Formats: sequence, C-alpha cells, structure tokens
Amino acid sequence: MEEDKSDKINDPGSVGLVKTSYFKFADPPDELVLSNGSKLGPITIAYETYGDLNHEKSNAILIFHALTGDAHAAGYNSPEDRKPGWWDIMIGPGKPFDTDKYFVICSNVIGGCKGSTGPSSINPATGKHYGLSFPILSIKDMLVPQKKLLDHLGIRKLFCAAGGSMGGMQLLQWLVSYPDLSQGAMIIATSPTHTAQAIAFNSVGRYTIIEDPNWNNGDYYESEKPDKGLSIARMIGHITYLSEESMHRKFGRKFIDGKQSLTGTADFTKEFEVENYLQYQGESFIKRFDANSYLYITKAIDDFDITDGFENLADALKEIKARCFVLSFTSDWLYPKEQSMKIVKALKINGIETTYTNFESPYGHDSFLIDDERLKRLFAGFLKSIGV
Amino acid sequence: MEEDKSDKINDPGSVGLVKTSYFKFADPPDELVLSNGSKLGPITIAYETYGDLNHEKSNAILIFHALTGDAHAAGYNSPEDRKPGWWDIMIGPGKPFDTDKYFVICSNVIGGCKGSTGPSSINPATGKHYGLSFPILSIKDMLVPQKKLLDHLGIRKLFCAAGGSMGGMQLLQWLVSYPDLSQGAMIIATSPTHTAQAIAFNSVGRYTIIEDPNWNNGDYYESEKPDKGLSIARMIGHITYLSEESMHRKFGRKFIDGKQSLTGTADFTKEFEVENYLQYQGESFIKRFDANSYLYITKAIDDFDITDGFENLADALKEIKARCFVLSFTSDWLYPKEQSMKIVKALKINGIETTYTNFESPYGHDSFLIDDERLKRLFAGFLKSIGV
Repeated sequence: MEEDKSDKINDPGSVGLVKTSYFKFADPPDELVLSNGSKLGPITIAYETYGDLNHEKSNAILIFHALTGDAHAAGYNSPEDRKPGWWDIMIGPGKPFDTDKYFVICSNVIGGCKGSTGPSSINPATGKHYGLSFPILSIKDMLVPQKKLLDHLGIRKLFCAAGGSMGGMQLLQWLVSYPDLSQGAMIIATSPTHTAQAIAFNSVGRYTIIEDPNWNNGDYYESEKPDKGLSIARMIGHITYLSEESMHRKFGRKFIDGKQSLTGTADFTKEFEVENYLQYQGESFIKRFDANSYLYITKAIDDFDITDGFENLADALKEIKARCFVLSFTSDWLYPKEQSMKIVKALKINGIETTYTNFESPYGHDSFLIDDERLKRLFAGFLKSIGV
Repeated sequence: MEEDKSDKINDPGSVGLVKTSYFKFADPPDELVLSNGSKLGPITIAYETYGDLNHEKSNAILIFHALTGDAHAAGYNSPEDRKPGWWDIMIGPGKPFDTDKYFVICSNVIGGCKGSTGPSSINPATGKHYGLSFPILSIKDMLVPQKKLLDHLGIRKLFCAAGGSMGGMQLLQWLVSYPDLSQGAMIIATSPTHTAQAIAFNSVGRYTIIEDPNWNNGDYYESEKPDKGLSIARMIGHITYLSEESMHRKFGRKFIDGKQSLTGTADFTKEFEVENYLQYQGESFIKRFDANSYLYITKAIDDFDITDGFENLADALKEIKARCFVLSFTSDWLYPKEQSMKIVKALKINGIETTYTNFESPYGHDSFLIDDERLKRLFAGFLKSIGV
C-alpha cells in the first residue's frame, strides 16, 4: 500500500505533495470593511499554489472554489491522503491548468472552515469562536482577501481566472469588481442571479441546521454539533448536484444488499441504494464542514445578484475586459444553460470576446468535477487562445 | 362574511355542503392480507360521493388522491370551511366531472390520516395507536379497500377513473389489477416506476422525520409530535411540486417586507419571500397531516414499480381495456413528460386506445390542481369520448 501512495504522489501528472500556506492581513485598526458596513479583522487566508510564477509574473491562474471547496485544489497534503485536491483532474503537469506553464493559485473563502477566517475561527478580540458574531458576507466580500493575496504575491494581472458554481459567481463578481485584472475567464456552471428555486433548496438546508437543537444559536463549538441538521442540508444539496439521469444510471431502483425488505418492520430510509448513498454523503460531510460556515456561505450565494446596483445584466458586465469562456452542462438543472446563456448574451452585447459551450454530460451540476477528456481539451483549448 | 360563505356553498357550480361517509370491513378473522403477507383489520374507509348514481350504475367516476390528499375532493364539509375540497375546480355541476351527469367517488387511502385506517388510528386489538405496528403498504394494497367500497356501492364497472401524481400510480395499478372495471382512465402527472431522484427527495423527507427526537420510533401520539421533521419534509416536497419558472414568477428574489436586511444580525431563513412561503407551507402541513402517514405513504410511492413481476412496461399494461388519456405538464420536473410517454408507448404497443397531451403549463407538478379553462376542456372532452 505504501508503494501505491508514493506512486500517486510521484505520478508525472500530479503536482505531488503540496503545503497549504497562510496569509494574514487586516490587523485592527485596519480591518476589512464588508459590503454591509461591518468590519472583520485580523483575517487569515489559507491558500495553495502549484507551478512557478514566471519572471514577468504573467502566468498566474486564480481558481475560485465552490460552496464546500477549499484551498486544496490539487496534489496531496500528506502521503496518507486517500484523495487528491478537489480539481486535481484539471491541475498538474500536462493537465489543462498546466503547472509546467502556469502558476495556479487557490484560496479558501472567508466565512469558510478550511483555514481561512470564518465563524468557527477564534475571534482574537474575545478569545472565543466567532459563531454568529461573524459578519454576514457577500460574494464580493470573499474577493477582497483574494485580491490582497495577489498583491502579496506581486501579481498585477492574472493570465486567467476560473470557477464553477459558487466559484463562477466569485469570478463574475471578480470581473465586475476588478475588470482590468484578468486576461481570460472561465465561467462555469453558474448563474448571474440566484433564482427562487435555488434559494429554496439552500434555505431549507439552513432551516434544518437552525432547527437542530444542537445548533444553539451558532454556539456549539464546545458542545455537541448540529450534525443531523448539517447532514440533512448536505443530502438536500447533493440531490441538486446530480442529474436525474446520473442518479438513474448510478442507482436506479437498486436495493441495498440486492433485495427489498418489505418485512413489516418498517425501515423507511434504508432500503434503496440511493438512500444509503445520500446518508453516506451527509455523514462524511459533517466530518469536514462547519454548520455555521454552511449558513454563511449559502446565504452569500442566495444573496448573489450581479445586477445589483446596475440597470440590467449587460450594464453590470459592461466593463469586463477579459476574454470569456462560458460553460454550462446539458444535465445541470440547478444552474441550467439558460443562466449561462444570459451571461453570454450580456457579454456579447458589450462586444466582449466570448466563447460558449453547452457541454453534453449526464452528470448534472457536478459535471465540471468529472474526469472527462473532452472537457480537458476544451479547457486547454481556451487557455491556449488567451492573449493570442 | 356569513353571506360570502353561503354564497360559495350555494354557487351553482359547487356540490355545496357534503358529508364524509365511512365504510367498515375486514373485521377479524377476515382481515385484509397485504402484499407483504401481513394482515390489517378491521379497516375503515373515509369516502365522499358527489352527484347521483344512475339506475344502471354506469355513471360512476372514481378519483384517486395524491400523497397528501384525502376523500374530501369537492364542496364544503362545513359552512365555516375556508376552502373547498382539493379538486373542486374539476368536480361539480357543469364542471368536467359533471355531477349533473356523473356519480363521483373519492376515498382516503389506507395508511392515511384523514378518516381511513392508518398508523394514527387506534388498533382495536391493543387499544393503542398503531404507530410502527401498522404494516408496510404498497400502492396495490391501497386499492383493495377502494374495490370493496365499489362492491359495497353496487358498482360493477366505472365509467371512468382518474388520478394525478400518486393518484396516477394508483390508477395505473388499478388498471393492471382490475383490467375490466373501467371504461375510461385519466392518468395524470405520474410515473410508471419511481425514479432514483424522486426516491431521493422522499427519502430525505422521511429521514428528517425519523431524525426528529420527537418521532420516538413512531410512538408520539401521547406526546410532542415530530413537527419539525415533518415540516421540513413538506418543504422539501413542496419545492419539487413547483417549477423553477413558477417560483420565479411568484417570488423571484423578492425580500420579505420589500427590503434586504444585511444587518450583521444573521437571520438565515427569513429574508426572501420564497423562504417565508416554504416555512408557511411546512407549518400549515403539520396541522393537517400525520408524520407516520407521511412515512408509510411516501414509502409506498417509492416502492411503486408497475413493472414488478412483468417483463417490461408493455407486458405489465397488456391486459388494460380502458380507453386511456395520459397527461403530463411541460414544467413538471418531478414526473417529467418522458415518464408519461413511456406509459403511452406501452399502451400503444398493446393497441390500447390512448390519447396523450403534454400540457403547456408553467406551474410544475401541481399543474393538475390549477384552475385552467383549457385543462377543463381537455378533461371534459376526454370524458365525452368515453364509450363513444
């Protein structure tokens, strides 16, 4: 088994062993002022980089993660890791985000729980976990620390920025807030405005957390955690990340242990394989995620509307200078192609160079995380076109 | 206000004041034997009828209700009722199920909580609520009492049977179990086989109930009820009954009280109108529905596969004699048109006279409950064609 582990780390397509770095800023009295006027500081940002920054500092790619993602996008933090970073299929030597050519950066959003300052962090002013004293965040607020991180790394302009789902929202906001900072942009499986249905799914998830007696108004870090609420929120979310077709292919109506057990002893949640799978997803999630972070981040997603303060979407996107690649997936019903097409239309109205693909995939919203050669070629092709 | 109430009851299109009737059978030792071999009895069935049975007993229409429906399909049980029965738009003098012509019957399914024997009923053998000692039911098991009721009413053959959603599943099973009993059949917004995604939504709902500490293994009738779990289950379900479009039209991104409150005091579930609406749906539901009934009935739905014991769908439907009308709705993503089209194909393979409409409607799965003149004409038109 040891051999296997070192093999995967030494795989020529892997960035291998990587270390998470931490960048600190916004020490009082220079706290970060958030969209709603509240202040946050000091702030720690967890981030990872892969590849080397070139002399001109012109080969940087910034990756924005999705709701439950983190800074660990590629490689392994330890030889014991069972799995590589969340976008390892795309990042590494010879992969689309080719670390032989590019310097790839990914950081954990504030509000998160994977090393960046969030509600589970200790507030140095009180010596206690922030909990609900953590300020309400917007997607825009998540970007300021990432801009500070680029300054810290001496990067004035990105070769490209890329993000899927909430990462795509961050990217849209990035392009609007900092229109001159990116040569290329890969806007993936996202929406310019969170819709009522998508809000509804997130909100029911938040409701299950808040209704969990262990949530205790967000103050649970020294006691039992609201694990049940958080796992149910994850189960609900997980259904929306898959397509009906992929669930059908993967589970269909298969029974756990191959047979139905209509025994009269009612077991209402452990008969179908799909039930087992969802419960497993819920149970694994609570080990790696903080319930308050789930509240804050899904809330930022629901509040996201890139047209806020603008007349319409075309008006919102008018200053963008990056060459854009917009990507949707045929079976994504959470952020269906119509949402991406709105972005494309608004970009084109503004004469912004834009490529759009509605990618044929049965895997639903999560398609951008699936290892698919066609998808990789598409990514590599767009990156090649930037600056040409 | 009194005047308004009497007006609605005396409205010429309303069946007016109606009384729920009760039919008892299966007294021990003649209990009903269920699909899984367990026995249930005595059984009470709550039912309502509207219009008059003609001398030939040839004008009866049997209506099957959906998951949370009941026997009260039309009119008012009391002058104080705020709303009429659940399908009042379709049943009454001059309406599609025209009570001047037809004798319309609707009964509550066993396993339910609206007058028919279910887990919240008292088990006469023990003097206690059934709770989890109630046997696991199938959709097929729900039909036997309805057949007994027809026998009791002296009806040998139905003019028509109709049902949407779980009512459509009952109807499909009815046509397979009793192929000679119906002249016409209106199979609405349903699926021949419950899919993995639909199972997933139901199962997460059941999980929230079971994880509610008040559920207490189904034994809560003398204590606090698992209201939180049940209301969350309903909220999840409710999202699936609406379409993205109808939620967008109805709520969009509107804020409660018209404005966003990013105050820093985190209120994670009470900002958007859609959140308010879903919570209201959850809270009203717990007043009228029993959590154990929700478990048993959704489980019967998830277990439903009309092809069980047959080679395929065409084989399963081969004995059907009724003239069939299959109806799906363009925006129904819970039971999308593909499911209805499978039924249509299987019926046509068997040479069964079948009409199919994919009805243009923005209201999602619940479209069959919406007051729509085009839909009424479609219903009336099909009923007119029966026996011609």
